[in-house]
Amino acid sequence: MIPQEIIRTLAVSTPSKIVLLVLDGLGDISAGEGTPLEIAATPNLDRLAAGGILGQTDPISPGITPGSGPAHVSLFGYDPIRYQIGRGVLEATGINMPLTPSDVCTRGNFATMDGDRRITDRRAGRIPTEENRRLIELLSKEIKEIDGVEVILETVKEHRFVAVFRGEGLDGRLAETDPQALEVKSLDPEPLDPAAEFTSSVVKKFIEQANRVLADQRPANTFLLRGFSKLPDIPSLEDLYRLKPAAIAAYPMYRGLAALVGMETLQTGDAIADEFATLEENWTLFDYFFVHIKKTDSHGEDGNFAGKIEIIEEVDRLLPRLLTLEPAVIAVTGDHSTPAVLKGHSWHPNPLLISAANVRSDASTRFSEVECQRGGLGRLPALEVMPLLLAHALKLEKFGA
Amino acid sequence: MIPQEIIRTLAVSTPSKIVLLVLDGLGDISAGEGTPLEIAATPNLDRLAAGGILGQTDPISPGITPGSGPAHVSLFGYDPIRYQIGRGVLEATGINMPLTPSDVCTRGNFATMDGDRRITDRRAGRIPTEENRRLIELLSKEIKEIDGVEVILETVKEHRFVAVFRGEGLDGRLAETDPQALEVKSLDPEPLDPAAEFTSSVVKKFIEQANRVLADQRPANTFLLRGFSKLPDIPSLEDLYRLKPAAIAAYPMYRGLAALVGMETLQTGDAIADEFATLEENWTLFDYFFVHIKKTDSHGEDGNFAGKIEIIEEVDRLLPRLLTLEPAVIAVTGDHSTPAVLKGHSWHPNPLLISAANVRSDASTRFSEVECQRGGLGRLPALEVMPLLLAHALKLEKFGA
Repeated sequence: MIPQEIIRTLAVSTPSKIVLLVLDGLGDISAGEGTPLEIAATPNLDRLAAGGILGQTDPISPGITPGSGPAHVSLFGYDPIRYQIGRGVLEATGINMPLTPSDVCTRGNFATMDGDRRITDRRAGRIPTEENRRLIELLSKEIKEIDGVEVILETVKEHRFVAVFRGEGLDGRLAETDPQALEVKSLDPEPLDPAAEFTSSVVKKFIEQANRVLADQRPANTFLLRGFSKLPDIPSLEDLYRLKPAAIAAYPMYRGLAALVGMETLQTGDAIADEFATLEENWTLFDYFFVHIKKTDSHGEDGNFAGKIEIIEEVDRLLPRLLTLEPAVIAVTGDHSTPAVLKGHSWHPNPLLISAANVRSDASTRFSEVECQRGGLGRLPALEVMPLLLAHALKLEKFGA
Repeated sequence: MIPQEIIRTLAVSTPSKIVLLVLDGLGDISAGEGTPLEIAATPNLDRLAAGGILGQTDPISPGITPGSGPAHVSLFGYDPIRYQIGRGVLEATGINMPLTPSDVCTRGNFATMDGDRRITDRRAGRIPTEENRRLIELLSKEIKEIDGVEVILETVKEHRFVAVFRGEGLDGRLAETDPQALEVKSLDPEPLDPAAEFTSSVVKKFIEQANRVLADQRPANTFLLRGFSKLPDIPSLEDLYRLKPAAIAAYPMYRGLAALVGMETLQTGDAIADEFATLEENWTLFDYFFVHIKKTDSHGEDGNFAGKIEIIEEVDRLLPRLLTLEPAVIAVTGDHSTPAVLKGHSWHPNPLLISAANVRSDASTRFSEVECQRGGLGRLPALEVMPLLLAHALKLEKFGA
C-alpha cells in the first residue's frame, strides 16, 4: 500500500462523481443452495458486473473479523490499525453531538437488573425512544457534574444513549461495564491504564448516582457502558483526497463514521428508497457519495437469510435511479461479511464490484461471492478501494516522472 | 497484515480443534503430464476441496525460495523476517538438546577430504548413525573446552550432528564452512560481524583440533559446519493465540521448529500411518495439531516424481482417519514447493486447502496447483494462514467496535 501521505500529493479535484454503495454485512456463506447474493434476482447488479470488474476485499486482513468502525475506516481509505475509533465517539458523532478533543464518550444501553443487582435484560426490552428520552431527562436533571467533570447525556434510539464526560485530565482507556451475559452483575469501569484512574473514579460515581436515580423505574433501572473513547486525530477526505464528500445513511453510527472523516451527513429517511431520493436531491452538490444500506447486516445478525435476499433485491430494483445520474465510478460492496448462519460479523472477505467507463473488465457476468473470488481485481485489502475509485474517476495524478 | 500484538488481544481459547497437515515440499511443476498432485489419485482430498476453499500462499513473498525454517515459521503465524531461526538451533531443538540463550549452535555434517584437504564427499557417504555416534564419542572425549568455551556434541542421524558452544560473549554471526562443492577445501568460519570474532577464533580452533582427532578415520575424516545461530526470542503459540498445540513429525528438525514456538512434540513412528495413529491417540489432549509429512519433500529433492505421487496417494488413503476425528478446521498445504525437476526447494507458491463448516466455498472440485491458482482464497502470504485457521475455528474475537 502506498502511504496516504503520498496519495495526498497525487489527488486532484475534478467534477467526476464517485458513488460508494455499501450494503452492510453483504458477504455471506452458502446455506446449501448458495449465498443470499447468489440466490437473489439482481439483473441490474449483474449487468453492472458484466461491464465492470469484480474482486474481494479484506476489511483488515485475512481471518480478522472487524467491527463496523474499522471496516468503514478501511473503505474510506484510512489504515484501520492506525486510526482506531471507539464506539462511544461513533455514537456521539452519529447524533451530531459536538465533541472536544479532551472529551471521553461512551455508549450506554439501558438495561434491567433484579433486586440483587444482577442483569436480567441487557437492553431493557429495547424500550421505546420516548421512554429513553424521559429517563435521560431525569438523569440529566439529577446529575450535571462529578468532581469537576461535566456529564452530558443524549438519547440515541430505543435503549441506546451517549454519555460524554467533559473536563481536564480524562482518559478513555476504561474497561466496559457490559458483562455480555445475564444473571451476573455489571462490571466496573476499571482503568486499563494508570492514566485513566481519575476517569474511572468519575464514571464509577456516575453509575452509582444514576442507579439511585433509576431505582424505581421499570423496566430500565440501570444501564451498561461500552466503548469509552476520545476523538481520533484523523485527516479529512477533503484534506487527503480533495473530495467534497457526502454520506447518506439512515443509521446514526454510520453518519458518525462519515462525519469523522469530514463527510457532510445528509438528512434522509429510514427506507432504502429515501436514501436514493436523497442521493438524487443532492447530486450536484458533492463529488463523492457514501450510501449506506443497513438492513443486509441487520438480517444477517438475526439469521434471517430470506430477509437478506429481499434487501439485496430491493437495492437492485432501485439501482437504475443511481445509474440515471451517470456517476463516473460506482462501487458496490460490503463493509464486512455478516453470514446469516453465523448471526454476526465474520472474517470472510467482501464482494466488490467496480463500474466505470475506463474499467478493465473481467470475465464475470454476475455479482456474487463466487464470481468475486474469480474476479479480475483479485483479493485486496479494503484500504486499496479508495485509491482504485479515485483512479477510475481520474482524480489521481501520476506518481513519479 | 495485522500486527501479531493485536491478534494476541483477539485470540480466545475454545474447545474447537485445528489440524494443519503439511506435506513438505508439496507444490510442484508439471513434467509434461501435470504435477504429482494433479496426477495422484486423491479422492478424499478432492472431496475436501469441493466442500472447502483453495488458494495459494507465498512462504515469504513471491519469488523467494525459503528454507524449511522460515517456511514453517510463516505457517505457524510468525513473521519469517522478524523471527529468523538458524539451522543449528533447529537441529539442537529437534534432538531435545537443552539450550541457553547465550549458546551458539551449529549443524555439523561428517564429510570426507583427501590428502590435500579437499572435500570429496560432503556427507561421508551418509555414514550410519552408529558410526556417527562412535565419532562423536571420540571427539567429545578429546575436546571438552576451548578458551573457556564448553563444547557439546550430539549425534543427530546418519552424517548429521550438532555442536553447541557454551560460554560468555559468543555470537552466532559466522560464515558456514560448507563450500557447497567438491574438490575444494572447506571454508573458514569467518565472523560476519566484529562481535563474532571471538566465537570465530574458538570455532576455528575446534575445527583444527577435531581434524587431528579424525585424521585416521574413514570415510568421515572431517566435517562441515552450517547454520551458526542462537535461540530466537519468540513468543509461544499459547501466549500469542491461546492454543494448546502439539506437533506430530517424524523428522527432528520439524519437531525442533515446533518446539521453538511452544508446541508439545509427540513421540511418533517413521511411517505416515504412525503419525495418523499418534494424532488419534492424542486427539483429546490438544486443540491444534501440526502434522508433518516429510517424504513429499525428500522425493522432490531426489527428483523422484513417481515417489512424490505415491506419498500423496498414501496420505489421501489415510485422510479418512483424520476426518473421522471431526476437527473444526483442516488445512492441507506445503511449507514450500520442492519440484522434482528442480531437485530442491523453490519459490513457487504452496497449494492451500481449508475445510471447515463455516468456510465460504469456491468453485473448485479438486486439490491441485491449477485449482489452487483459481481458488477463492486467492494468493496470500503464508503468514495469513494462521489467522484464517483461528477464524474458521471461531478462536478470534472482533477487532474494534
